[in-house]
Amino acid sequence: MQAKRFRTVQGEIEASFTKIFKKRVPILGSGRTDSGVHALGQVAHFRISSPMPLEKLHKALNGTLPADIVITKIEEVDKDFHAQYSVKEKTYRYTILNREVRSSVNRNICLLFPYDLNVALMRSEAKCLVGKQDFKSFQNSDVNRKDESTVRTVKALTIKKTGDIITIDITANGFLYKMVRNIVGTLLAVGTGKLPKGSVKRILTQKDRTMAPETAKPQGLCLVSVKY
Amino acid sequence: MQAKRFRTVQGEIEASFTKIFKKRVPILGSGRTDSGVHALGQVAHFRISSPMPLEKLHKALNGTLPADIVITKIEEVDKDFHAQYSVKEKTYRYTILNREVRSSVNRNICLLFPYDLNVALMRSEAKCLVGKQDFKSFQNSDVNRKDESTVRTVKALTIKKTGDIITIDITANGFLYKMVRNIVGTLLAVGTGKLPKGSVKRILTQKDRTMAPETAKPQGLCLVSVKY
Repeated sequence: MQAKRFRTVQGEIEASFTKIFKKRVPILGSGRTDSGVHALGQVAHFRISSPMPLEKLHKALNGTLPADIVITKIEEVDKDFHAQYSVKEKTYRYTILNREVRSSVNRNICLLFPYDLNVALMRSEAKCLVGKQDFKSFQNSDVNRKDESTVRTVKALTIKKTGDIITIDITANGFLYKMVRNIVGTLLAVGTGKLPKGSVKRILTQKDRTMAPETAKPQGLCLVSVKY
Repeated sequence: MQAKRFRTVQGEIEASFTKIFKKRVPILGSGRTDSGVHALGQVAHFRISSPMPLEKLHKALNGTLPADIVITKIEEVDKDFHAQYSVKEKTYRYTILNREVRSSVNRNICLLFPYDLNVALMRSEAKCLVGKQDFKSFQNSDVNRKDESTVRTVKALTIKKTGDIITIDITANGFLYKMVRNIVGTLLAVGTGKLPKGSVKRILTQKDRTMAPETAKPQGLCLVSVKY
């Protein structure tokens, strides 16, 4: 007997395709997100030969998908388009609720962080992360990708504070395994004073994951958009 | 045998008090919200004689309450303070997701409204609602309050559109039963062109509930704040 698999967004969408077309239609996303991570702008492709108009398929998918998953847009693309390999850049947002009292409304989409944060210092420390460089210190080991390059280009990193909500937006041409959550974990350690000024630059140049603080929890992370 | 009661915020908070003090502590809110309506800034009072410091009680309550309910603040007040009778004004927000495709993230906290809306017209029509007047046309019948006055003072009514999200904020010294949802239902009918220009003023002066369009659904409504 096979153990019941965890529910995944991909699995649910493929189940909807099966309901509509009575056959399996595999979908391929721009990349996998860890359990607990959210996505507002995930992109996936699929191949199908069907006379069903796109608008009708769009409604049929949203009509059969569970309430917590929605297809916001559906469009025809060139045959050589690939949701994963054609990616030009992705933007992730990490949301921190910086207060003592937990939130009922946002409980699953932010990290509750009850300690004082020096946001100005976090901003100035983060500057050195922008650009093309080796992010090995911010990558968790991933057995499937051992020989791959750990060089990525961070195009933008913005830290905003609105009331007690802090958002960290990172845009890059690609991300290493748990890279955003490791960067956020380091910036939080800098923000509380646990790590001194200059730590981000030092950790980056050490190219050693064991030098960086712990990975920030998944629930604050959201894949905002993917550009092709 | 008694039927199982519906879960209420008041009931859950009173259950937490019972857990902490091993006795019943009744709490009284600024007013009741209908099933499906949210509250970010509900206020309630209770009376207790206890040596427990407020900060400790605050943590104990949030530690025992379910994840979807949180006490954001707790403070000592004068003996004559009354959460309901001392209210000076309340602000409600109604949130409309004005697009065709449903939302996964906001599915329980907004009304999905897929038709085009003339927001400028809604704004100009809503102007006549501000001020002290008889809102009888926007009150649902409530057997418990038959002889009460239906005059209220709306201090502000603001309609904002940000992307596909429209928010209608109404501040008043008090609200009649389903008043906000009835006003929103009317403004939506004006926004789609179902009701002509001048309708809000006409309905208001008719002082007859049967003249106004249907009540907007509860899930878009949120009690934002209560002032004393």
